Amino acid sequence: MAAGSTIGTLFKITTWGESHGKAIGVVVDGCPAGLELCEADIQKLLDRRKPGQSKFTTQRSEGDEVEILSGVFEGKTTGTPISMVVWNKDQRSKDYSLIASCYRPGHADYTFDEKFGFRDYRGGGRSSARETIGRVAAGAIAEKFLESLGIGVMAYTRSIGPVEIDGEKMDLAEIANNKLCMPDKDAAKKAAAYLEEKMAECDSVGGVVECVVSGLPVGLGEPVFEKLDANLAKAILSIGAVKGFEIGDGFAASRACGSENNDAFRMGEDGQVKKVTNHSGGVLGGMSDGSDVVFCAAFKPTPSIAKAQDTVKKDGENMELVIHGRHDPVVVPRAVVVVEAMAAITVMDALLMSMTSRMDLICKFFEK
Amino acid sequence: MAAGSTIGTLFKITTWGESHGKAIGVVVDGCPAGLELCEADIQKLLDRRKPGQSKFTTQRSEGDEVEILSGVFEGKTTGTPISMVVWNKDQRSKDYSLIASCYRPGHADYTFDEKFGFRDYRGGGRSSARETIGRVAAGAIAEKFLESLGIGVMAYTRSIGPVEIDGEKMDLAEIANNKLCMPDKDAAKKAAAYLEEKMAECDSVGGVVECVVSGLPVGLGEPVFEKLDANLAKAILSIGAVKGFEIGDGFAASRACGSENNDAFRMGEDGQVKKVTNHSGGVLGGMSDGSDVVFCAAFKPTPSIAKAQDTVKKDGENMELVIHGRHDPVVVPRAVVVVEAMAAITVMDALLMSMTSRMDLICKFFEK
Amino acid sequence: MAAGSTIGTLFKITTWGESHGKAIGVVVDGCPAGLELCEADIQKLLDRRKPGQSKFTTQRSEGDEVEILSGVFEGKTTGTPISMVVWNKDQRSKDYSLIASCYRPGHADYTFDEKFGFRDYRGGGRSSARETIGRVAAGAIAEKFLESLGIGVMAYTRSIGPVEIDGEKMDLAEIANNKLCMPDKDAAKKAAAYLEEKMAECDSVGGVVECVVSGLPVGLGEPVFEKLDANLAKAILSIGAVKGFEIGDGFAASRACGSENNDAFRMGEDGQVKKVTNHSGGVLGGMSDGSDVVFCAAFKPTPSIAKAQDTVKKDGENMELVIHGRHDPVVVPRAVVVVEAMAAITVMDALLMSMTSRMDLICKFFEK
Amino acid sequence: MAAGSTIGTLFKITTWGESHGKAIGVVVDGCPAGLELCEADIQKLLDRRKPGQSKFTTQRSEGDEVEILSGVFEGKTTGTPISMVVWNKDQRSKDYSLIASCYRPGHADYTFDEKFGFRDYRGGGRSSARETIGRVAAGAIAEKFLESLGIGVMAYTRSIGPVEIDGEKMDLAEIANNKLCMPDKDAAKKAAAYLEEKMAECDSVGGVVECVVSGLPVGLGEPVFEKLDANLAKAILSIGAVKGFEIGDGFAASRACGSENNDAFRMGEDGQVKKVTNHSGGVLGGMSDGSDVVFCAAFKPTPSIAKAQDTVKKDGENMELVIHGRHDPVVVPRAVVVVEAMAAITVMDALLMSMTSRMDLICKFFEK
Repeated sequence: MAAGSTIGTLFKITTWGESHGKAIGVVVDGCPAGLELCEADIQKLLDRRKPGQSKFTTQRSEGDEVEILSGVFEGKTTGTPISMVVWNKDQRSKDYSLIASCYRPGHADYTFDEKFGFRDYRGGGRSSARETIGRVAAGAIAEKFLESLGIGVMAYTRSIGPVEIDGEKMDLAEIANNKLCMPDKDAAKKAAAYLEEKMAECDSVGGVVECVVSGLPVGLGEPVFEKLDANLAKAILSIGAVKGFEIGDGFAASRACGSENNDAFRMGEDGQVKKVTNHSGGVLGGMSDGSDVVFCAAFKPTPSIAKAQDTVKKDGENMELVIHGRHDPVVVPRAVVVVEAMAAITVMDALLMSMTSRMDLICKFFEK
Repeated sequence: MAAGSTIGTLFKITTWGESHGKAIGVVVDGCPAGLELCEADIQKLLDRRKPGQSKFTTQRSEGDEVEILSGVFEGKTTGTPISMVVWNKDQRSKDYSLIASCYRPGHADYTFDEKFGFRDYRGGGRSSARETIGRVAAGAIAEKFLESLGIGVMAYTRSIGPVEIDGEKMDLAEIANNKLCMPDKDAAKKAAAYLEEKMAECDSVGGVVECVVSGLPVGLGEPVFEKLDANLAKAILSIGAVKGFEIGDGFAASRACGSENNDAFRMGEDGQVKKVTNHSGGVLGGMSDGSDVVFCAAFKPTPSIAKAQDTVKKDGENMELVIHGRHDPVVVPRAVVVVEAMAAITVMDALLMSMTSRMDLICKFFEK
Repeated sequence: MAAGSTIGTLFKITTWGESHGKAIGVVVDGCPAGLELCEADIQKLLDRRKPGQSKFTTQRSEGDEVEILSGVFEGKTTGTPISMVVWNKDQRSKDYSLIASCYRPGHADYTFDEKFGFRDYRGGGRSSARETIGRVAAGAIAEKFLESLGIGVMAYTRSIGPVEIDGEKMDLAEIANNKLCMPDKDAAKKAAAYLEEKMAECDSVGGVVECVVSGLPVGLGEPVFEKLDANLAKAILSIGAVKGFEIGDGFAASRACGSENNDAFRMGEDGQVKKVTNHSGGVLGGMSDGSDVVFCAAFKPTPSIAKAQDTVKKDGENMELVIHGRHDPVVVPRAVVVVEAMAAITVMDALLMSMTSRMDLICKFFEK
Repeated sequence: MAAGSTIGTLFKITTWGESHGKAIGVVVDGCPAGLELCEADIQKLLDRRKPGQSKFTTQRSEGDEVEILSGVFEGKTTGTPISMVVWNKDQRSKDYSLIASCYRPGHADYTFDEKFGFRDYRGGGRSSARETIGRVAAGAIAEKFLESLGIGVMAYTRSIGPVEIDGEKMDLAEIANNKLCMPDKDAAKKAAAYLEEKMAECDSVGGVVECVVSGLPVGLGEPVFEKLDANLAKAILSIGAVKGFEIGDGFAASRACGSENNDAFRMGEDGQVKKVTNHSGGVLGGMSDGSDVVFCAAFKPTPSIAKAQDTVKKDGENMELVIHGRHDPVVVPRAVVVVEAMAAITVMDALLMSMTSRMDLICKFFEK
């Protein structure tokens, strides 16, 4: 917990850049050598967080094309830092005098000013959602790494405002079929209607993203402070608008009895230990337990709304603020890939870490 | 995220010890010199997590008396590591053959065995709740430090199973009046009845702990990965039975509209910027915003229950398990002080970190 | 000690880039907000490590112009990561087949291949001296920060091969007057002659860089593992060709008696405690003691020489190697600014860290 | 570089304790599970740093018996923190008024007082050489781990004052035959005579410890800041009285030519790449190169001498100080095992870290 733009221990990423500065980027250190990687691998994920894809996301046109500046040679990672950059193209000099002079409710303007004495007020500066470009670019590398070991990471929208998917009707194929990334056709329709209603009222909405990590070996995560779920919680809460995190049954577990919440073990036909249910969400004692790791992230509604709001000026005067301009009425659909990226980054780090826990496996590794 | 028993950057704690080993302890490094500290300061908090205090907690008698071995001289911290130890007195050699040979549902037996190849099966070993003794001892130092700067940390039980406190009837003075640490007399009564009912059914229950940190300066926490709420989430999820975390309105924020969830700013009579409401839970952009920091932790029901459960033997055979012995039917009341401790540790670290964010304040600090 | 391209705790830098990749860069995190900074501040130091400045340095023309991509707004640091990049201009596609297929003695070709399975062989890749561009850019920020607190960092050449400066004739004004950065006119002349002689023999030479940090407060550095001199040693040994480090009298202290090596204390006229001598090199018990911090770094001779050398091919055959091309016959003069940069980075981190060691000063800091 | 009593990333140790406090100890986190370990393994190394073994070391009788409090079960490490303690037995309440009221030259009294505001003055407190007990106990674990992989770590005395061993006469079997730990019978005799002479003059002497790590795989250490030699330098400079560090030829390399200093490569009969010489000291580009890692540490003379010295009182008055009592006239023989321990700790961490550098080996590791 130091200078805050780096996360991870063995697989370590450092993001940099402001919304309306020259560029946004990330340096990924600790990626093993020999992973096939090209810009298209990164771009694929970046394109999923791009704005302007539907009426539910901001209409700004951001190219967001990634360039790899180091760490890849002849199509493979070299084991040295991978530096990636996305140039900010939409930098027309707007009039920022309003946002420069007052504190938008729900934004970090006030806390930035108090902490640092002043702030880069252009488009939210460092606290802009554009910071997540670096996370997604790094996450693309982590996903590629995990894939090559048979581990999948997939996130989707669980709810938009009060509209939640129906577990019974869940169909992952639907995720790509609707702009809200919901794996339930009917819920997606209802959510879209709800969203249009709120947009008409100049308001915004929140929602929940769910993420599933499958194919994990047993034993990722460390028993005490570096529990897999604790690190997932940190990684997810570090995303701008997240206000809550649940692993497995989450808050519902607090209302259940032990006899309901415990997952029974049974021997599988393959001779492996299996859990009959997965209330635990794939972790026991902070370590992956062989079931899918399943967690949820609660996103607050976009704070930038066109409704009038009470606030104060920087110079200490009360005022009424109306925010104009292009803003996502809901961040959830674009945040899905950010959640996925942060999960992949966290799991990859835990997986590398797990290689050093047993003498027998270490001896075998160094045996010639 | 390395070798998992250390947390914190400037204020750093390392816990050690197994449930039925010789002792449990913690080394606290980075505590500033000159803080008045004695064993009674630590014992006060440790006594709040002691078992055997009511019929709702395990009847094991654990003395849990703390001894300070270093880092304090003439009644003050010296700036060097503070080593604290609690000797395990209740070490009678029980018959552990059952727990040694099978995997208890909801416990970390299976994941430990897979990760490390074997485990110290006596009383849960390192994954026992006794590990939290070190956290609470360290938390007592952090709370004392924060108090001296006017910062208070207070946790209490928000719900037991489905029984939640009524915000309207909330009375902090009640916390000490009931064994469940609930700030609502009526809810405490109902919760006790619910608990007795479940105990009679040989079952266990979960619950929610809420924590409030008051008196914080604006600007603790760093904008990107080291957000104050992200570090709180990690610290809280690192506690054994926690399955969910919410800051401010948490998951409810995901169902609200922007116009409801945004907290308006107004100038206070003291010339300070104030938030009119606190849906944010005291953080904006990951930095403390001057309001109370308020968060919740969901605890699952105690996994050790006397009801018969399906499980497997270590050697790969299905079996039915009945766990006898002394176990808390609910961990929440004893976990309250653990939550408080982890919050204090996290906030203290963020506070020390925040001292280096501004040139003007640094120049003033080094001015002679 | 993880993924190796980041150093520092509160002031943290991450370098990236290969010699003949697209660019070389650094991300500086943890720089306090409000420091005046522009590209010229960085360029000034970068120009001191530029090649092509004399016949003693490689004749490659590298522009090495730095661009700041983030973290500075309206001429001041914002407290967020400062990303800096230098584009590699001298990337003409040379014939790398020789260096690709064999292991140059004294270089990291062999160890890279073994560790990572393959390597970016173009111009040394990540182990090229061009990596130090990122260090110097970051060091320029640290030096500017330290200057604003009255702390100076200055390095110079102490010896070239066997030619050492004469302490009696030392004149700092001379440093800028000779291409070898020696603060002794006569020694510089002798060293130049020695160097020409070795160049004529197709050979290379090493040397020693000395560095002095003045104006430090007492108490920087932590008593045990984070001693100021221990962190300086790590920072300096992390520079490519460094083979030795001395603080104060260094190895000479190992031959002295206690009565000679101890520095007596006396009260100064200003009422401050002073050391009469400075055999300690400005640190006692790992903490700055108020005297100048003085240390030395031994650089080995440039490994790339035009003389024939025995080596092996990647495919396991013995061979004789003759390296052609432009190489510094001695790295020392260009390394002076790198040593200075690493010293500044280390000292700045220790200085920020030192702010949290005393309760009385912390209380004063947060007092309103 | 934070709160200074922890070192290491994957293999992480935290020392605690003051010279005359209740105890001295260490917590070792990140030791892989399944390493056979008992107290005798630790005691063996601790006994090598015990005082009272010859007339050249202090006559204090310190039992220094280690107790393992956690992390070992049924004779094997469990993968959880190993807490070890040595109780301070020699705690008779001496008169500390002199040392409490003035600053001993060459000691950390003054810097401690300035940094922390006051200090535990009893026997040097935290800056006492007794702090190294924790390092040696942790080092014993690292040495046992390395041994099981065929890696040996061995240190010895290279010089005492001006008396150096003769490389030609070097005989490792001699190390155990003389109290000065010198692998050269004649040098040991001369050194003993020199030492007696200086003791008679109430003076003290320094010396050099050399350490050899053999059997290392190629590729330990990371290319940029986490070079193996950089981390060794930090670990060694973090030992109290060390003033210099050399890897391989060290400062002599700065006086050599490239043609002399480069180590030629040749194919060995076993089909492995070999270096013909080892001027590099076993590292190329910061990574182990297959040769022995060889480094030296320069120790200053013991600062506590019975000769009169000028110093100042805490209250700002000049004075003359004569230190009485039992002090090592030279720390080197007892420091040999401390150097060995720090080397083992550093190498073990680098070795664990090196497991994650290549995709092909990672895939093989996780293959079932």
